[in-house]
Amino acid sequence: MKSDDLNTLQWTLARRAERMNPSVIREILKVTEKPGIISFAGGLPSPRTFPIDAFSEACAKVLREDGQGALQYAASEGYGPLREAVASQLPWMVDPAQVLITTGSQQGLDLVAKVLVDAGSRILVETPTYLGALQAFTPMEPEVVSVASDAEGIDVDDLAAKAGTGDTRARFLYVLPNFQNPTGRTMSEARRAALSARAAALGLPIIEDNPYGDLWFDAPPPLPLTARNPEGCIYLGSFSKVLAPGLRLGFLVAPKAMYPKLLQAKQAADLHSPSFNQRMVAEVMKHGFLDRHVPTIRALYKSQRDAMLAALTKEMDGLDVQWNSPDGGMFLWARLPAGMSAVELLPKAVEKSVAFVPGAAFYADNADPRTLRLSFVTASVDQINTGVAALAAAIREAKTA
Amino acid sequence: MKSDDLNTLQWTLARRAERMNPSVIREILKVTEKPGIISFAGGLPSPRTFPIDAFSEACAKVLREDGQGALQYAASEGYGPLREAVASQLPWMVDPAQVLITTGSQQGLDLVAKVLVDAGSRILVETPTYLGALQAFTPMEPEVVSVASDAEGIDVDDLAAKAGTGDTRARFLYVLPNFQNPTGRTMSEARRAALSARAAALGLPIIEDNPYGDLWFDAPPPLPLTARNPEGCIYLGSFSKVLAPGLRLGFLVAPKAMYPKLLQAKQAADLHSPSFNQRMVAEVMKHGFLDRHVPTIRALYKSQRDAMLAALTKEMDGLDVQWNSPDGGMFLWARLPAGMSAVELLPKAVEKSVAFVPGAAFYADNADPRTLRLSFVTASVDQINTGVAALAAAIREAKTA
Repeated sequence: MKSDDLNTLQWTLARRAERMNPSVIREILKVTEKPGIISFAGGLPSPRTFPIDAFSEACAKVLREDGQGALQYAASEGYGPLREAVASQLPWMVDPAQVLITTGSQQGLDLVAKVLVDAGSRILVETPTYLGALQAFTPMEPEVVSVASDAEGIDVDDLAAKAGTGDTRARFLYVLPNFQNPTGRTMSEARRAALSARAAALGLPIIEDNPYGDLWFDAPPPLPLTARNPEGCIYLGSFSKVLAPGLRLGFLVAPKAMYPKLLQAKQAADLHSPSFNQRMVAEVMKHGFLDRHVPTIRALYKSQRDAMLAALTKEMDGLDVQWNSPDGGMFLWARLPAGMSAVELLPKAVEKSVAFVPGAAFYADNADPRTLRLSFVTASVDQINTGVAALAAAIREAKTA
Repeated sequence: MKSDDLNTLQWTLARRAERMNPSVIREILKVTEKPGIISFAGGLPSPRTFPIDAFSEACAKVLREDGQGALQYAASEGYGPLREAVASQLPWMVDPAQVLITTGSQQGLDLVAKVLVDAGSRILVETPTYLGALQAFTPMEPEVVSVASDAEGIDVDDLAAKAGTGDTRARFLYVLPNFQNPTGRTMSEARRAALSARAAALGLPIIEDNPYGDLWFDAPPPLPLTARNPEGCIYLGSFSKVLAPGLRLGFLVAPKAMYPKLLQAKQAADLHSPSFNQRMVAEVMKHGFLDRHVPTIRALYKSQRDAMLAALTKEMDGLDVQWNSPDGGMFLWARLPAGMSAVELLPKAVEKSVAFVPGAAFYADNADPRTLRLSFVTASVDQINTGVAALAAAIREAKTA
């Protein structure tokens, strides 16, 4: 036995680590990193929307006026003025004491799983659902069960059928009601009312993830589920889509029954989110900055969605491809003709210099192999036109092959 | 049943959450937040050491030259130039590909526990050990076993006795060899050599935590354990003590056998550490900045240690109190006379406007109630003199009571 083998044998992995896998999307993004490729694959906000000047001013001011505070250890709950700013901008009465600042909303998912999921615990997700949430939950070894979903969101009768009892009783439903990743769909007002009532009747907690809610195009989405039953929901939000993801700042709003344990999990995970970044964002948010800035993101993304819809209508003519028309966010969901597979299409599309994410990656079970996710925010309008034409050509060739 | 009760009953905590508790230190710090108190309790670096001007310049430059990159999503491994800078400053051959940037070294502990600890897994720690590590490990429900330790570090015979076999085989030994938190002690060269050999013979992985190693006063500490057996160790480092904790940046160096799983756990935990902060620190580290900056921290902390040692010698005369003389870092370890309890002394000390952390908080088991941790870096020399006199007065009164 070589010494390398000996050394490897020293390490015994936890059972949960055996279930961790490289992100499918991450692996796809690597494949699609060839020069000149037009990518509809990533979930990256358009860097044109990052308010660099505002951040520059905020950095300089924070370091000048309170550099020592901004660079020191701080409370695990987060920076007081930022917690207040978060509470005041949410569309229901939120006590800042219930706001916990997280290192991106991804961390909120990690904390929720740590506090609520035992090995084997049932948890419920949409069909399809956000891949990053599945990755965050997996280390705590849940039994993930998909609830049937349509264009308006969760099927509440299927929810009741899958909520479980006794040992199989679901710990929570994870749901992303606004401009969902991956489908771009939005839960209707009627469906929200029905879901909120049914979940309360079932005693089923809801984890509501809302990173895209501010990115609406024509009208704001209906009121969050958490606003309808704050004691029965944990709400996750993010600054990644309205300011910038590179600061890794998000937040959660938790009922009093859950806050202390989430806080303890947060403290154990990374002590606190960067105090400097929290002060930068609190500074940038002053004087209604988001009220002026976010509409510029909405207008840009709406024009890009329109460009993609127009290109799809033009290029997919006669190909029997379906797609939806999201009311906000970053993603559009498409479905190939019967018998085709998005996973098999991807390498052919990449040959023609266009990339997407096969939808199968987003299903906890029973994936629909025909689906694919298209981001319309990272590529320019010209790239959207060229890329959709290339995608149509790849589909046409695959159909006739 | 009121509706509040109904709602509370919806939430079922994970078993691990029942084991989470508020940080003892956090609770103590709350008690000691009265105006005018002199605190030897916290583990806060002196804010006088934060290089605010260098950070201001770095922020402006990063945003001016690559704002879009600094504010965008990024790779989970961390920013390439920062990984290279970390690898190049470590005192053994490190491939930057083995460096993972973490959200503070606290996150490194969380990732290690996720990847290596199953519920009931034995893990070994020093006596006493870093409280934050115990908090990070606890959610994964280990059986924590203390290994006997003296002023030079781990007792290697007791280590062998407690390493376990089969199902009780320890997953790792967690050790903080340089200027340990809480004791300030440093593992000697002879002990490191003995520990490294014994651990390798036992096939026992080592998690080596080194946040304070650069803060030596007269001579650098001996070579890290990881340098002696890189395939058998995971090394954790931090920028919190040499630059500033408020950026929440640390790193780990892992062998090839472990890196991929730690990376997957990192991605699930918070996608990546803030790209902006990573570029700031990489920028600040250019052109040998740490070589000029860190000696100023060493000089300051050494003068503060000397002040505390002098004050202790003067004020504790005749009180039968013992203390050590750390060769670096931030903490000094003291022991009260037989029969006294540091937990009982604390409120009496706070009455006299001085605070410390009772040592019992740092033991996984069999705590020594007479011990206490004194930080010498946050208070000024004048405050150290006043505070040590007040502490001596509290001990004197407690002895005669």
